[in-house]
Amino acid sequence: MLERRRKLWGWGYESRQAPPDEVEQIARGAREQLGFEPAEVEHPPRLEDIELPSPRLEPPAALAPICTSEPYERVTHAYGKAYRDLVRALRGRFDNPPDVVAYPRDEAELEQVLDWCSSAGAAAIPYGGGTSVVGGVEPRVPQAAAVTIDLGRLDRVLDIDPVSRAARIQAGATGPALEQQLKEHGLTLRHYPQSFEYSTLGGWIATRAGGHFATLQTHIDDFVESIRALTPSGVWESRRLPGSGAGPSPDRMLIGSEGILGVITEAWVRVQEAPRFKVSASVSFARFAEGAEAVRALAQSGLYPSNCRLLDPGEAALTGASRDGALLVLGFESADHDLEPWMARAEELCRDFGGESRRKGSGEGTWRDAFVGAPYLRDHLIAAGILAETFETAITWDRFDGFVAEVRERAATALGPEGRLTCRLTHAYPDGAAPYFTVLAPARRGSELEQWDEIKAAASEAIESAGGTITPHHAVGRDHRPWYDRQRPDPFAEALRAAKAAVDPKGILNPGVLVDP
Amino acid sequence: MLERRRKLWGWGYESRQAPPDEVEQIARGAREQLGFEPAEVEHPPRLEDIELPSPRLEPPAALAPICTSEPYERVTHAYGKAYRDLVRALRGRFDNPPDVVAYPRDEAELEQVLDWCSSAGAAAIPYGGGTSVVGGVEPRVPQAAAVTIDLGRLDRVLDIDPVSRAARIQAGATGPALEQQLKEHGLTLRHYPQSFEYSTLGGWIATRAGGHFATLQTHIDDFVESIRALTPSGVWESRRLPGSGAGPSPDRMLIGSEGILGVITEAWVRVQEAPRFKVSASVSFARFAEGAEAVRALAQSGLYPSNCRLLDPGEAALTGASRDGALLVLGFESADHDLEPWMARAEELCRDFGGESRRKGSGEGTWRDAFVGAPYLRDHLIAAGILAETFETAITWDRFDGFVAEVRERAATALGPEGRLTCRLTHAYPDGAAPYFTVLAPARRGSELEQWDEIKAAASEAIESAGGTITPHHAVGRDHRPWYDRQRPDPFAEALRAAKAAVDPKGILNPGVLVDP
Repeated sequence: MLERRRKLWGWGYESRQAPPDEVEQIARGAREQLGFEPAEVEHPPRLEDIELPSPRLEPPAALAPICTSEPYERVTHAYGKAYRDLVRALRGRFDNPPDVVAYPRDEAELEQVLDWCSSAGAAAIPYGGGTSVVGGVEPRVPQAAAVTIDLGRLDRVLDIDPVSRAARIQAGATGPALEQQLKEHGLTLRHYPQSFEYSTLGGWIATRAGGHFATLQTHIDDFVESIRALTPSGVWESRRLPGSGAGPSPDRMLIGSEGILGVITEAWVRVQEAPRFKVSASVSFARFAEGAEAVRALAQSGLYPSNCRLLDPGEAALTGASRDGALLVLGFESADHDLEPWMARAEELCRDFGGESRRKGSGEGTWRDAFVGAPYLRDHLIAAGILAETFETAITWDRFDGFVAEVRERAATALGPEGRLTCRLTHAYPDGAAPYFTVLAPARRGSELEQWDEIKAAASEAIESAGGTITPHHAVGRDHRPWYDRQRPDPFAEALRAAKAAVDPKGILNPGVLVDP
Repeated sequence: MLERRRKLWGWGYESRQAPPDEVEQIARGAREQLGFEPAEVEHPPRLEDIELPSPRLEPPAALAPICTSEPYERVTHAYGKAYRDLVRALRGRFDNPPDVVAYPRDEAELEQVLDWCSSAGAAAIPYGGGTSVVGGVEPRVPQAAAVTIDLGRLDRVLDIDPVSRAARIQAGATGPALEQQLKEHGLTLRHYPQSFEYSTLGGWIATRAGGHFATLQTHIDDFVESIRALTPSGVWESRRLPGSGAGPSPDRMLIGSEGILGVITEAWVRVQEAPRFKVSASVSFARFAEGAEAVRALAQSGLYPSNCRLLDPGEAALTGASRDGALLVLGFESADHDLEPWMARAEELCRDFGGESRRKGSGEGTWRDAFVGAPYLRDHLIAAGILAETFETAITWDRFDGFVAEVRERAATALGPEGRLTCRLTHAYPDGAAPYFTVLAPARRGSELEQWDEIKAAASEAIESAGGTITPHHAVGRDHRPWYDRQRPDPFAEALRAAKAAVDPKGILNPGVLVDP
């Protein structure tokens, strides 16, 4: 129902589907490079070979034009993009596809869809880019039927306020779509999660997505000026305010609500002029620990680098960024002023920890290309029988070294002797940092989900029990629930459940996410 | 029950009580300076002349040692420090004092007090420094009795984490108490609301207090790492995390909850090293509008000045800061690096709008002394029959000029021809600013509350209807409810009410604040 079709399986649009022989070649090469035994390369099922349960409900006539139960639509909306989603889809296993996919074109139609779900007793699952890696859009629901609401047609930048540097943008706008529209006005949001090409503003807000900036505006949270959402009990719209102290923030209750309180339809976000001054450097450290000390010093310095990503030696080598030692990708950007004094002081701080800095021009771009390309590569890894997953957290500096060591060790044990585990720091705060782990291991063909469960549980137990957060920017969804439930304060859980019941009395919105239905 | 006693009437400790002749002199001088006709100077009542309703409940024996119904305690806990509070107290009018004031020494005692309130059907009003200017601690409650819970005995810094730069501090610690304890470790919170001397960390968090920094960490919100609170349904304690993406933030639900969800007992807050580098300047502008343009440019520049307060000509003259034109108090501070490049660029930006900069050393200190001294002066103004009040808001830049003009005009009409209205900007954001208005007028003796109601309503209507926030950092309390109720999204109000009912099923906590009991 949208102009550009997403692949039936894997990351991206159909136009970027690699031909089978290229997949074979990359997949075999990856196993070889990782030192894994050769294995058969699998190919995704054809649509006609996928068996789907019959749709259990039909839209009312008035909504028929914006609803579909075509197999392609049900299949492509059945999962997010977690490893376990891709494996199941690769095997043609679709146990819980949505019965109907709705594409509202405006709020009136969205309201009608919600009304219909309410009266039909169907679950309503808001869907942005479908890039959830935590089961956030998967219709595993107690209801007898599920309607997935794809916001893809609400993709416009509706208003620009160049004076306040803010823009009103519809929730279904993807990263490229909104940046393209902002660019016409000389503005940019500069929120670049790895899913940037496909994920949407609404999805970012609903999941507290992490973005471009390593310090200060690390999350979409920090760009939100106001939000408009439809709930089954009416419109939840906050005022455009640069700051407020009027009670608990209504926006902060929607930010991270993952579709359980309402469907976000648009938001005013803080935008900026494109940076005219950029300075970047690669700083090498003998060990990850010294690099982390430098990141701490930088985060506590008040210099606020835009980029401050520390790769451990394994990750630096794997991405081709450095051949030995840890590597800090450091950058400053501004639309207002030259940043040489900023960078000079940052390099001084790095030298205190043995960092050797090398200035560069396009380094950050290269790294970003690799970063954005990673999900495409992952498809090939999975086809090659390689378990490829990430898990991430955030922890205060006082616990940092022991925490990372503990998580590494427990995850490595679960991964097995052939597994590879690397780590980078994605965001840096005065009081801590967000470590992001990537794991690669030969998949146990046929029991990948069990294997994933073991690794995920080992890592998550380590993170949760050592005091980290189960998710710094990938949301809770359905997959993180066991650890999230232990992490959050109990009275807060009661408050959130009650809040949901108040605005969604029939419990139709994304049931099972964050709280029990 | 605390070592240093607060004055029976007015701002501060008894030790800072001005002698009656000094009050007379200052009060008369103030009227003269403002060009108001001379008027009689009033003096506060003596304790023995105040008639109080009898306490309607008695604590159980186990709680008797930490509870009191002494008149002095009931009187000093009956009101906050709003103009209308001071006027009523000046006339000896105490209609709704708490029946009992409890001083728990630890969480176990606090829990017992809450249990007692629950079983006795009494309202429980958390009380920090008692500096509310919005009726936030006034026992106007539907319950048959009210217990005010003074957190003043929970005043310790409990833990220091010098690596993460964080400290665990009890909710009842006042500004000076916590800064003194932090100083022993070479650290500082640097959160300086005007009420700094008396207000407490718990109060700041509960009311989203604005502080020292004009940009970035404008509110206590931005310093909070985790919070611990007692609710009638158990302990609400979040994890220490530098950042998280796990669902809506539990902390952001407590921040600004004004005591209706739980009693905050302690928090981990982000602290810093005392600044070693400071640079400040006074920048003169021909008009307020040009100064505001410069503030906008500074706020959007990414330079992040620590101080960026713009005084309109009236306020600049009244505080003795400048004889004509608007004045920007501009400053940068850092514990890490010299700030000359920052200030140089900031001054360039100011020059674009005609700003003339003068560097200075102690200017900021002088301004801060006047700022902290203002509430003391206000006592004398009130004694002199001068209505002295402030109201404040925040608005996006696109609406700024028209908004400020509209609020000025409507407030001036309500003030009458003799009234004085001045404005300053307290906090600056990329997308807007927080205007803070001060009003002075001859009080209508005997009907000050009605006069205040008219002015407050005129200003609040103007703010609310023109799209501002009814409070940027003074909380909602009981006095801001009519406008707050219009400002907040309805479904959010339902969600908040339900959340409160879930954690406080008997509705004992600060009833009437934020939501209806």
